[in-house]
Amino acid sequence: MKVFKEAVLPLGFKAHAVSCGIKKTSNLDLALFYSEVPCVSAHLFTTNAIKAAPILLNQEHLKKTQTIQAILVNSGNANCFTGRQGINDARLCASHTARLLKIDQAKVLVSSTGIIGRRLPWKRIIQALPFLVGGLSPNGIHNAARAIMTTDTFPKEITVQFKIGQRWVSLCGIAKGAGMIQPHLATMLCFLFTDANISSFALRDALKNAAEESFHCISVDGCMSTNDTVSIMASGLSGCPKIRLGKDLSAFSSVLRFVCLELAKMIIRDAEGATKFVQITVKKAKDQQEAKRIALAVANSNLFKTAVFASSPNVFGRIVAACGSAGVNLNPDRLKINFTSLDKKEIKFDIAVGRGNATAKVFTSDLSYQYVKINAEYN
Amino acid sequence: MKVFKEAVLPLGFKAHAVSCGIKKTSNLDLALFYSEVPCVSAHLFTTNAIKAAPILLNQEHLKKTQTIQAILVNSGNANCFTGRQGINDARLCASHTARLLKIDQAKVLVSSTGIIGRRLPWKRIIQALPFLVGGLSPNGIHNAARAIMTTDTFPKEITVQFKIGQRWVSLCGIAKGAGMIQPHLATMLCFLFTDANISSFALRDALKNAAEESFHCISVDGCMSTNDTVSIMASGLSGCPKIRLGKDLSAFSSVLRFVCLELAKMIIRDAEGATKFVQITVKKAKDQQEAKRIALAVANSNLFKTAVFASSPNVFGRIVAACGSAGVNLNPDRLKINFTSLDKKEIKFDIAVGRGNATAKVFTSDLSYQYVKINAEYN
Repeated sequence: MKVFKEAVLPLGFKAHAVSCGIKKTSNLDLALFYSEVPCVSAHLFTTNAIKAAPILLNQEHLKKTQTIQAILVNSGNANCFTGRQGINDARLCASHTARLLKIDQAKVLVSSTGIIGRRLPWKRIIQALPFLVGGLSPNGIHNAARAIMTTDTFPKEITVQFKIGQRWVSLCGIAKGAGMIQPHLATMLCFLFTDANISSFALRDALKNAAEESFHCISVDGCMSTNDTVSIMASGLSGCPKIRLGKDLSAFSSVLRFVCLELAKMIIRDAEGATKFVQITVKKAKDQQEAKRIALAVANSNLFKTAVFASSPNVFGRIVAACGSAGVNLNPDRLKINFTSLDKKEIKFDIAVGRGNATAKVFTSDLSYQYVKINAEYN
Repeated sequence: MKVFKEAVLPLGFKAHAVSCGIKKTSNLDLALFYSEVPCVSAHLFTTNAIKAAPILLNQEHLKKTQTIQAILVNSGNANCFTGRQGINDARLCASHTARLLKIDQAKVLVSSTGIIGRRLPWKRIIQALPFLVGGLSPNGIHNAARAIMTTDTFPKEITVQFKIGQRWVSLCGIAKGAGMIQPHLATMLCFLFTDANISSFALRDALKNAAEESFHCISVDGCMSTNDTVSIMASGLSGCPKIRLGKDLSAFSSVLRFVCLELAKMIIRDAEGATKFVQITVKKAKDQQEAKRIALAVANSNLFKTAVFASSPNVFGRIVAACGSAGVNLNPDRLKINFTSLDKKEIKFDIAVGRGNATAKVFTSDLSYQYVKINAEYN
């Protein structure tokens, strides 16, 4: 297995990004991902009851089609809480993209991130589409990773090459997200591309499991977004033997899990205002769900996060209080808390609760002045 | 009904406070509340699974006795996560107090607030007890209200005088709490004293209902403490006709609700780093529980709170996202959000969800740089 710290598109994929004027700055804000062949795909969308228009449109498209070929993503505007008009605007963008790419409209998905409650500037997007399609290239992914950023300070990208049978297979992922990060899911977008030859069932299973131990285990601020999306497209062009449930899936799954976990950790490292990277492991819980609930109660505690920011020994008491508030009938006499030096950039907390054998690990950041500043001033 | 903005102890009660050296400063840190006669009482303790030693001791005492006569409160140390030793330390303080007051030990409750996980400096407390008991006075309540403060910037006190039958009855309350404030319950201590003549059942019923619409409707940071306590003592010395379930209880209950709500609002006004007082009303929910869940999802959203701090119009989208994350199947087309000017010190948010007729109101504050600073530096 070879790991690259940048995105390299697998066989069959192209991407491009432009600045079309959605963001106030001249930063890139519109990206297109395209596959030359129809792709098997799998998707996870936000569980927020209020879903942004692009998510509603995608769900509609995915009912109509077995494969997809393109994803159009804009940053700067979430196209959320925009009613029927928002869905129409998203549909217009998808249909224009489909026409230019000469593919079925249902094979185009759309994705948005940014301000909620403002109408999508669809004219700017449509005017930019010919340039976006015209510029599609196998090397376009790095700019595309920048175009999906909002408050992110660096693009998040990774590529892994691994063997299935005699063939090299490539899996590449990019992500954005720096705040509103909370399990199931957070304002994060993640797009994954592979040339693996894989069945739709197997791909869905692998993505669900990978997300469970990565994106569902990170938390910046306990806020859940309306636009969260994790999408994976598989072109099959590597020519590897077909991966199915029970056949070569575990190899593919473990690579996907690794890629998702690396991207999730990058999101935490870039968490709004974060000065520290925090790993919380809860051990000896009754079951995994319980372990995760306790770990997240700690990860989401503002008092815990400010104490981590300040390297304050008070962090101990705040962990105790947060554990106790998780809705689990803990016995304080069995609670054991250990942590590495608070002065370091990376801190590991180990919490043993003495109730069983299950373990869960979550990742979070501290809460700094900067978090307040970024979220107060974002517009 | 007469309302006074300061605490005036009802007939039969005395209080006193001293500085015994638990706090690093020379601020008052030990208070004693005493009734000349045994009192009917009612109590609400934290629902945190990890309960501080004084709460465990109080629960033990309340099983042994029908009435209580004294509450000893210290600030600066929570006596929490201190194991069996913590309970022994709390018991030692209670037994010394009982001996000095010449009452049964079970009639003395204890309460602590401050740092978690450090042993209670019981020697300092016991050395100070003779001075504390010797200084008991009907006027001692104001200093006692200061002695229970931690990060509070002002004491929270109120007194209401009202008539039951031909008799004037007095109800006086003090509270502390400025962070770790979250429903069911928050690090808050609240002590209420009345000379009403009331049955134990009626008192419990009134306290439970009053807390439901006051302390359980405020949230500073979504953190739940290990030491929360609301206690009410009724001396009966007003000589009013005995209040029972169904007899004069509604009059008493409405005064208690008013007193608790005023104290709860004072806690929010003094919320750590708060620059704004926020009222969130969720209307047209299916039932009250649902309305409260949505209101609290908004109140506890860091993104909402930072936007309120910054008077940012982004607050709109953040309310939408928070409502959607409350676990209620909202229809965005029916969601209506209104709010008063964001530039003001007090802001009211009205959120109609179009699902029924239930309403809930919660109170919270914004999230400022100062919150981070206070919680990073507290020790």
